[in-house]
Amino acid sequence: MADFKKLNLLKLLDPIAADLKQVERMLIEQVGGFEPHIRAAIQYLLDGSGKRLRPALALLAGGATGGVTDRHQVIGVVVELIHLATLVHDDVLDEAKVRHGRPSAHERWGNIVSVLLGDCLFARALHLTATHTNTDICCRVSAAANTVCAGEILQNQHSFDLNLTREQYLDLINMKTGALFALSSELGALLNESDAPVVEQMRDFGSQLGIAYQIYDDCVDIFGQERASGKSLGTDMKKGKLTLPLLLLLEHTGADKRAAVGEIIFHGAPSERQRLLELALGNGVITESLLTVDRHLQRARNKLAGLPDNAHTQALTGLMDFIGYKTGTLMKEAVAA
Amino acid sequence: MADFKKLNLLKLLDPIAADLKQVERMLIEQVGGFEPHIRAAIQYLLDGSGKRLRPALALLAGGATGGVTDRHQVIGVVVELIHLATLVHDDVLDEAKVRHGRPSAHERWGNIVSVLLGDCLFARALHLTATHTNTDICCRVSAAANTVCAGEILQNQHSFDLNLTREQYLDLINMKTGALFALSSELGALLNESDAPVVEQMRDFGSQLGIAYQIYDDCVDIFGQERASGKSLGTDMKKGKLTLPLLLLLEHTGADKRAAVGEIIFHGAPSERQRLLELALGNGVITESLLTVDRHLQRARNKLAGLPDNAHTQALTGLMDFIGYKTGTLMKEAVAA
Repeated sequence: MADFKKLNLLKLLDPIAADLKQVERMLIEQVGGFEPHIRAAIQYLLDGSGKRLRPALALLAGGATGGVTDRHQVIGVVVELIHLATLVHDDVLDEAKVRHGRPSAHERWGNIVSVLLGDCLFARALHLTATHTNTDICCRVSAAANTVCAGEILQNQHSFDLNLTREQYLDLINMKTGALFALSSELGALLNESDAPVVEQMRDFGSQLGIAYQIYDDCVDIFGQERASGKSLGTDMKKGKLTLPLLLLLEHTGADKRAAVGEIIFHGAPSERQRLLELALGNGVITESLLTVDRHLQRARNKLAGLPDNAHTQALTGLMDFIGYKTGTLMKEAVAA
Repeated sequence: MADFKKLNLLKLLDPIAADLKQVERMLIEQVGGFEPHIRAAIQYLLDGSGKRLRPALALLAGGATGGVTDRHQVIGVVVELIHLATLVHDDVLDEAKVRHGRPSAHERWGNIVSVLLGDCLFARALHLTATHTNTDICCRVSAAANTVCAGEILQNQHSFDLNLTREQYLDLINMKTGALFALSSELGALLNESDAPVVEQMRDFGSQLGIAYQIYDDCVDIFGQERASGKSLGTDMKKGKLTLPLLLLLEHTGADKRAAVGEIIFHGAPSERQRLLELALGNGVITESLLTVDRHLQRARNKLAGLPDNAHTQALTGLMDFIGYKTGTLMKEAVAA
């Protein structure tokens, strides 16, 4: 495993640095493809300092299965546009005021325009796909978009639902996040005309990586530091979203106390919530969350077996190590705090 | 011109009755293509007794340019799905409580789920397009979806804007409504591999028909009877949407009184609004609205020149006559009331 004290994400993505820059240029160029009266808003959304994880995944999956082509860059733009569309809608649903350290779109333009901006980004992604690839890829892109939205609806249907199970939560984040990671990874291979089993394998890899990443992201919302992550913290709890650490905490809670604990999660004062998290710390919840992330990373790792051992495959492995490392650090800091 | 006292829309669409039934069957079949937990909601949206005008347009345009094929039926489903998606989002934006005489989606499931349901319908439309047609058609479908959303944003940007001009209003409804009518009509011809000028002509036809229809629809919101139209009336005014009759009324209002008239339009009591509409009736506003609808219908009619004089082309002409007739009747009833 790499020495992460010396490593950062940028260094990890070095094999695709030039491709990512090109994706960034193409993202900015997209602005011109929108109607004049919405360009400023689209520009604002594209300028956000996202990590471009999904484009990176498409590019690395390409490099690991034959090579990175222009069409991989296009797909990088496509998956980032879809991701940005879901972020905009997410922020509306979460009523988040901050995204990547700046006012969120819905805070700047209101719910209505945000919803429609998201739709425009999504339509543009499909347009770009149809312009540069084929109908098979168009099918997969639109199916993934459908799944992501269905995942968001499922999440919404389970708001404030103390009966949500761990399995349902995992299904839900697989739809909400796994689907777009799976698409990015799968298309990376498909564009190289990899055999169907390899495409399927890369799809599963992306799916597992997405689940691991979403659990990490959900843990940040509970245990992270707002300053560092650039978004409002604890919004999940207030919005009735039960994520893995909370589900584990509820599993450890006797049936007679679950309603009371739920009340604190959803409606508690900050001091009450703080006490609850301290309870979680002493309860094995942190360890179990870490282990769950590791389990999905391991499943992802298994899917890479058989790929050539080149710089891109190594970067994919590095990405998994990185998520594991970040989750571990987050949890260690939570214990120390 | 046909005798509309004996005619209804159903009779008019007789040449494509079987195709429309098939479109209806295929729309219902779509339910199975969505994730299980959203099927009931999708079913509810598809069951609505919409007029299926856009599918009719795609089918008639097909029949007028060579014949109606299976792919025309698919495109009929596609344009209706996109239309339903925009209706769902529209209702969220308008906070309309009723759609086609039933509770609107956002009234039943709330804003969040409605937004996402709209997204799912849209993604499904693109998926269907990619499955059954080609990338050129995928491009046109996604571009139209983008335009429709951009039109909605433009409308939102001009909410409560007393400086909105008639030209801006026409641009706006051309984006919001004309784009999908244009797409339906254009694809009808394109699927028959019509020459580019014919495709372009059918596109322009759809666009003009859409503008005429939207003006009619906007007039219903002001002058119609809630019972008959099945949606909440006067929502446009309350939501700050200035439509043609109101813009004409404002044009007839001296600069010193525009702010006061605007105040009544947007925030007036029902009795004040009623007095304003009576003012409009005596002011030539009704006649001018009618003339504007007729002007766009005439432009649409001109675009049909050169098409074979078959049952489908006649039905397209009949559709224009029908919109003209409905607008005239609406206005006559408003004067008589």
